[in-house]
Amino acid sequence: MMQFPKPTVEQFFRTYAITNFAVSKDEKRLIFNANLNGKMNLWAMDLPDTFPYLFAHQEQLSSFIQFDPNNRYVLSGFDQDGDENQQIYALPVEGGLPQPLITGSSEDKFFFTHLSEDGKRVYYMTSDGNESFLNTHVRNLEGQSDRLIHSGKDALTNLAAVSNDEKKFAYLMSYANTYVTGFVKVDDQEYNLTPDAKKVHITFDPIFVDDSTIYFATDYDSEYSYVASFDIETKQFSSVVSLEGESVKTLEFDKHKQTLFILTEKGVADYLYKYDLATGDLEELSLPVDVINQLNVTQSGSLFVLGISATIPHNIYQSTDGLSWKRLTNNTVLGVSGEEMVVPEVVSYESFDGMEMEALLFKARPDNDNGHTIFWPHGGPQAAERKVFRSLFQCFLNRGYSVFAPNFRGSTGYGSSFVKLVEQDWGEGPRLDCVAGIEWLFENGITDRDKLFLVGGSFGGYMTLLLHGRHPEYFKACVDIFGPSDLFSFVSSVPDHWKPIMERWIGDPERDKERFIRDSPVTYLDTMTKPMLVIQGAKDPRVVKAESDQIVEKLQEKGRDVEYFVMEDEGHGFWKKENEINAYSRMLDFLDKHKG
Amino acid sequence: MMQFPKPTVEQFFRTYAITNFAVSKDEKRLIFNANLNGKMNLWAMDLPDTFPYLFAHQEQLSSFIQFDPNNRYVLSGFDQDGDENQQIYALPVEGGLPQPLITGSSEDKFFFTHLSEDGKRVYYMTSDGNESFLNTHVRNLEGQSDRLIHSGKDALTNLAAVSNDEKKFAYLMSYANTYVTGFVKVDDQEYNLTPDAKKVHITFDPIFVDDSTIYFATDYDSEYSYVASFDIETKQFSSVVSLEGESVKTLEFDKHKQTLFILTEKGVADYLYKYDLATGDLEELSLPVDVINQLNVTQSGSLFVLGISATIPHNIYQSTDGLSWKRLTNNTVLGVSGEEMVVPEVVSYESFDGMEMEALLFKARPDNDNGHTIFWPHGGPQAAERKVFRSLFQCFLNRGYSVFAPNFRGSTGYGSSFVKLVEQDWGEGPRLDCVAGIEWLFENGITDRDKLFLVGGSFGGYMTLLLHGRHPEYFKACVDIFGPSDLFSFVSSVPDHWKPIMERWIGDPERDKERFIRDSPVTYLDTMTKPMLVIQGAKDPRVVKAESDQIVEKLQEKGRDVEYFVMEDEGHGFWKKENEINAYSRMLDFLDKHKG
Repeated sequence: MMQFPKPTVEQFFRTYAITNFAVSKDEKRLIFNANLNGKMNLWAMDLPDTFPYLFAHQEQLSSFIQFDPNNRYVLSGFDQDGDENQQIYALPVEGGLPQPLITGSSEDKFFFTHLSEDGKRVYYMTSDGNESFLNTHVRNLEGQSDRLIHSGKDALTNLAAVSNDEKKFAYLMSYANTYVTGFVKVDDQEYNLTPDAKKVHITFDPIFVDDSTIYFATDYDSEYSYVASFDIETKQFSSVVSLEGESVKTLEFDKHKQTLFILTEKGVADYLYKYDLATGDLEELSLPVDVINQLNVTQSGSLFVLGISATIPHNIYQSTDGLSWKRLTNNTVLGVSGEEMVVPEVVSYESFDGMEMEALLFKARPDNDNGHTIFWPHGGPQAAERKVFRSLFQCFLNRGYSVFAPNFRGSTGYGSSFVKLVEQDWGEGPRLDCVAGIEWLFENGITDRDKLFLVGGSFGGYMTLLLHGRHPEYFKACVDIFGPSDLFSFVSSVPDHWKPIMERWIGDPERDKERFIRDSPVTYLDTMTKPMLVIQGAKDPRVVKAESDQIVEKLQEKGRDVEYFVMEDEGHGFWKKENEINAYSRMLDFLDKHKG
Repeated sequence: MMQFPKPTVEQFFRTYAITNFAVSKDEKRLIFNANLNGKMNLWAMDLPDTFPYLFAHQEQLSSFIQFDPNNRYVLSGFDQDGDENQQIYALPVEGGLPQPLITGSSEDKFFFTHLSEDGKRVYYMTSDGNESFLNTHVRNLEGQSDRLIHSGKDALTNLAAVSNDEKKFAYLMSYANTYVTGFVKVDDQEYNLTPDAKKVHITFDPIFVDDSTIYFATDYDSEYSYVASFDIETKQFSSVVSLEGESVKTLEFDKHKQTLFILTEKGVADYLYKYDLATGDLEELSLPVDVINQLNVTQSGSLFVLGISATIPHNIYQSTDGLSWKRLTNNTVLGVSGEEMVVPEVVSYESFDGMEMEALLFKARPDNDNGHTIFWPHGGPQAAERKVFRSLFQCFLNRGYSVFAPNFRGSTGYGSSFVKLVEQDWGEGPRLDCVAGIEWLFENGITDRDKLFLVGGSFGGYMTLLLHGRHPEYFKACVDIFGPSDLFSFVSSVPDHWKPIMERWIGDPERDKERFIRDSPVTYLDTMTKPMLVIQGAKDPRVVKAESDQIVEKLQEKGRDVEYFVMEDEGHGFWKKENEINAYSRMLDFLDKHKG
């Protein structure tokens, strides 16, 4: 009787991001960070009532949310329009406007780690006085006295856990994404959590299960991260539990039941387990979605997760047993059911050197297919394209484009060796994995040779520029979203506290000069001949605007067809709904124009 | 341990408006219209889950929401930025973007009345072809055939009810706010619902309780509206039930239980009753808030209300028995509890002619009192200031201002005679009631003579201008929000379908020329000497922008201190959150500046 048109582009962007949440000790209030009203703000629900109300109005992304255990205030962290200079704010327990609590100059960073059980002492790291390695302080909220408790050196040093008696501190030192060591500091003594800190491995999520035992995750001597323990008395390191082919991603501890909740990742999805410290029993639980962003265990043993699937935007779920889940939020695509969207196929193909690559293939629905494919190299690079909802992908698909997203070497979720393959090799192996993926698309009849587009952000933006420069024949047009264009300028412009990891990650500009030249997109300006759209946030601290400015300027000088779209009030990502819609609408128009 | 500052102005405006709602037949979905994300959009909740999700994105105020009883679509009405030229749109049942269904030129209006039980025929009125009196049509959604079923004449004619068999139609003819007659049309015969249509009275909310009986509300031969019935067979009019000192405001019918729900108003608050048609039993129910904007009764007999109290913003509540209520939404003031806000005292005072006036007095909390009072003449004028949450009032109070809002003659809720006293007397009686209220404030020591401000909107804006011109000595400064400044130009610039009621409401510009001159604010330009802020929506169809333009221009020519704030995309009200905050922040700055 009544006919309605297909959903429009805009409908896919009328979802919102939920980035993090916290639950009060009595489980009566849940606060979450979402751009529900267009900009990022804190919202709350008074459980079991789930209708959300505005809890804090700051119009900025919150980096953490922490309830005072005695319910006198709430702490949160905010930066300015994505500059990532987080500072720590306090809020009245009934909500309101965030008040600066632990802050400094707008150039300094203050990262929250821990609040004491009595809610009186805040442990935090700051760049103030130690830009590259960070200092750790404790602030006493009564009297506001502040004490330096650790000075980072040699590597970015983060306080990661504090014992109940606040006398033992677990720190992590980051030499690279794939090289993070941990130590516990007792009085002035430091003890490594793993047997040999000089071996390359990662250590994370240390938990004081009692005052003398730390549980943590590590890939020490293993392809996949597992749960290990360190006994502070005996200095004994032990492997506790590992899961075949899965990497531990997050640990959460139920102190009351002495149970560890282990979230793992395997390729494109996550899994959850419960481990009983006393009996050693391991039980697999279920998850309501494919990929989990945050897992919280409350004092009563309830589980709360924030997660996402390819056709389900971010939502928060609650479970008492880890088997059945109740959705608390209701973030959906305006007028589009999950069934109308596209679930990706997980495919694999062989790369140039015989190595197996996994990829997600989102195939446009046959009634809607425009024959074109968008090749999407993910960001990170030490991250992965997983089964997550992306407005952009579902919108591409709705317009008839297919999307192909390979997890090239360097991607996480495929073992420690695989993820390290991108280190000091940004431009060769991963690029050739992309090229092999493109050829696979052609060979398998998924895409015609003249119907491929290239779109990527961050490292994916870099890869877009590089593929464009070195293989322009493959692409009709390219979209670069805040991608580094020159490795020389990139390594010197990242935030100070990133600099210690740059050597292992990318290399040394002097020692590796030739490789830097070979792997920098700007080297290939002559062959970057296809139409290009460049999108950049002016406040981006990771890939600074100059990275985009320079390539746009140089290509425009050569008379190339390059559009440049700068968002003044964004950093490395789109957090303001109108910016996101503007940027992606422009991108879709660009693709449609060049599709012909 | 942690001290937080008092709530700021902005916090009070971070509430939102909920203007209307609808519940699906199976009671599984509730759709409501709210500016939750800054602009008015339709949101839904899938009951019992109350987390809202975006249902329609239009960024415009919806004038009604109607579910297809067979759940194939949803209807709604939208205008453009407040121009009140409503048109009728359809939405997919799962939500999406509204599609034009019954629309015409952007100057025409299409008002929805009724959808047939099978969801196939839409009854609506349109200005197309009959600007002043409206025509009534039925649109068959199968085949889209459209038929004119009634042509309004003599007065604005609205279809108000359709019998189950769609053969009998109840119409209302509006000669004035206080003179609305009703008739039922059967074939081509018309029968008045009340014994004498020539007597001045109002008739509203006709309901076909069966195919031969209409129940409705009227104040025919009474000071207060009561429930009456009309038998179509016998043409018999009967008074059914009346409530001492209370006026019926809305009728809703539970067909299954043959029960009438009667919402009444008495001065500043509303009351709810249940009336059993068979037994004649009348039972008072309870309400969750003081003032109800909408009451729905579902097929199962559940009650849903949208309502408000002085310290509680708009919320939707549900009840199965009309005694205990569950709040479904959670619209609150950011970080401010109800206890921190001010509940008004209901006071009364004697006016110039001995008549008793009721008023709301919001007294600033003693710890916060700045000694100044804002005198607020309400709009309408045939409306009343009631116990409703106004961000603006609570924000004034938070800044230390007290607020005094009199229900001068012409206000509703005090009987039919009282409300008629403003007719053809806009500028004398009501003005002197205001003056008596001001003197009462001084006499009772609530305000010093040099500490009074004047703020009003719509008719209240007119009264602000008039009081300013005729009694400038009372006020430190004045704020006029879209108030008519000249009765001659005002009566000729209202929407066409308002024109039939202008004669009774205000008068005839030729016959009443002297009174029009005496009661027009522009007559008193010489004495309008106090600083003034004028706020106007450019698209306002009720009080057009020229009304504000002319007085601002004339006063500025005389060198007076007049600020003018025009919002380009608003009509007669503020529906866009950022406009509202801008306008009221400017108002508060203006008051603070002139408070000295």
